[in-house]
Amino acid sequence: MSLIYDRVALIGLGLIASSMAHAIRRDNLVGEIVGYARSEGTRKRALELGFCDRISETAADAVKGADLVVLCVPVGAMGEVSIEISGSLSRGATVTDVGSTKRSVIEAVSPNLPNYVHFIPAHPVAGTEQSGPDSGFAELFENRWCLLTPKSSVDIDKVNKLKSLWTSMGANVEFMEPDHHDLVLAVTSHAPHLIAYTMVGVADDIRRVTDSEVVKYSAAGFRDFTRIAASDPTMWRDVFLTNKEATLEVLGRFTEELFALQRAIRTGDGEHLHDYFTRTREIRRGVIEAGQDTDAPNFGRNKKN
Amino acid sequence: MSLIYDRVALIGLGLIASSMAHAIRRDNLVGEIVGYARSEGTRKRALELGFCDRISETAADAVKGADLVVLCVPVGAMGEVSIEISGSLSRGATVTDVGSTKRSVIEAVSPNLPNYVHFIPAHPVAGTEQSGPDSGFAELFENRWCLLTPKSSVDIDKVNKLKSLWTSMGANVEFMEPDHHDLVLAVTSHAPHLIAYTMVGVADDIRRVTDSEVVKYSAAGFRDFTRIAASDPTMWRDVFLTNKEATLEVLGRFTEELFALQRAIRTGDGEHLHDYFTRTREIRRGVIEAGQDTDAPNFGRNKKN
Repeated sequence: MSLIYDRVALIGLGLIASSMAHAIRRDNLVGEIVGYARSEGTRKRALELGFCDRISETAADAVKGADLVVLCVPVGAMGEVSIEISGSLSRGATVTDVGSTKRSVIEAVSPNLPNYVHFIPAHPVAGTEQSGPDSGFAELFENRWCLLTPKSSVDIDKVNKLKSLWTSMGANVEFMEPDHHDLVLAVTSHAPHLIAYTMVGVADDIRRVTDSEVVKYSAAGFRDFTRIAASDPTMWRDVFLTNKEATLEVLGRFTEELFALQRAIRTGDGEHLHDYFTRTREIRRGVIEAGQDTDAPNFGRNKKN
Repeated sequence: MSLIYDRVALIGLGLIASSMAHAIRRDNLVGEIVGYARSEGTRKRALELGFCDRISETAADAVKGADLVVLCVPVGAMGEVSIEISGSLSRGATVTDVGSTKRSVIEAVSPNLPNYVHFIPAHPVAGTEQSGPDSGFAELFENRWCLLTPKSSVDIDKVNKLKSLWTSMGANVEFMEPDHHDLVLAVTSHAPHLIAYTMVGVADDIRRVTDSEVVKYSAAGFRDFTRIAASDPTMWRDVFLTNKEATLEVLGRFTEELFALQRAIRTGDGEHLHDYFTRTREIRRGVIEAGQDTDAPNFGRNKKN
């Protein structure tokens, strides 16, 4: 297979960027991978790990001569980094990102880009609770979705090329309107994360239950919340601040519904609870059928975990 | 190793009972396993699966001659089943249960038991979102906690014997006061389950986001909620109705905290969010260190899930 891009510049070297580099290397999709991270420690570590061919000292240097530039920084830092690279971008280059929110990234980045580059916002819906250059692995995107939210005026050949990179890394690509993306993700990701963060914080706060008890008995449900709530604090702060309206809308609906269930518990309305829980069980079936999780009895985990 | 009990009666044949039977068989811990389930379909299926030596047609029949009786029915059914078996229990037998709440089970069961049996309430803190006789597997209890909440007046030899069964099945046993148990589990299990049920229900309700979108993009966080929210509706209805006070207390604290985070999002208070998320990340570290989950980058799951 011929190379999809000659040179890709990864700006930011965390979980997503390092996973992209591993996947690109595995299948030889790109001629050269150039990396940049703001933190010197991260640059040094990436150099040791060796998933990039070169590490640049500045973002501007990193993007020089690249036909694909991927912004892999927290969404709150996208605007700034787009200013840094703006003057060094090659004519005809594609600029994309991997941010979890799309409207805010588009608003922050678009005005800074010269009109001779092609901006195609993207969001690979994949991740773990890990972060940093050590956390990447080539299989992260396999069977996961990557959502592209380009303007309709963008060059279709450039869009198809980026699509081809993502499908080669194992992802399924879909197109979406940016505002709709932000609402869908508020439901499937942003609100669940805030709720998990909240529950984990509350557990830590209830003084009559010790932290060690919380940890010891976490297998009963709480454990999955702690995994979600271990995600990168900077990334998630930015997500909530940049997808404010949609997240608050979903949380408003959530609170309403939670109050109704609390009332059912208080009044002993078992039928309401049972009906509700039966309905949510159906949705789980959908997730399994869609191949987004396993229903193996032991979660597909090792016996000894 | 010699047998721990001569004959165990499993009353109810769902996930926990079938997992116990598999674990008991694997290590030959008990002479004979007798099973009973209220539903004829379940009895028939258990017979086919063969994890019991015998299946009885009534709970009373099942417990005859058993030196260990394990009540494995939803906590709301414990009282009724204890009445059914009461007259058939052997002198000196141990009666235990596997219910997720302890105060209510003790109140429902104790008054019905003759004074010549030993009642030792128990709660193995282990489970999956699956239910029914097909869902059991011998490793379910490995490295999980089993909490015993006996009265101090109970025969210590009988307590040690039950403890030894649980440790032989792979669990770590701890003792706890029933009310404290119920509060700890409200934090680590009951409130998280209600919250997950709520979030999954809300996702299903937001009309501008289709169900198929919710399912497709679930990998971003929502997926873990759907797993929790797929748990057995009857079991969980009973848990909430029987651990009402502790669950409502924890949910009250949760709502308070959620409102504070919502306010931080609305007002753009990034520092509050970042500090909160940094604190919850620490708790996750505790869970991993305590061996209650894995931090493998791909969750220890198969590549293709």
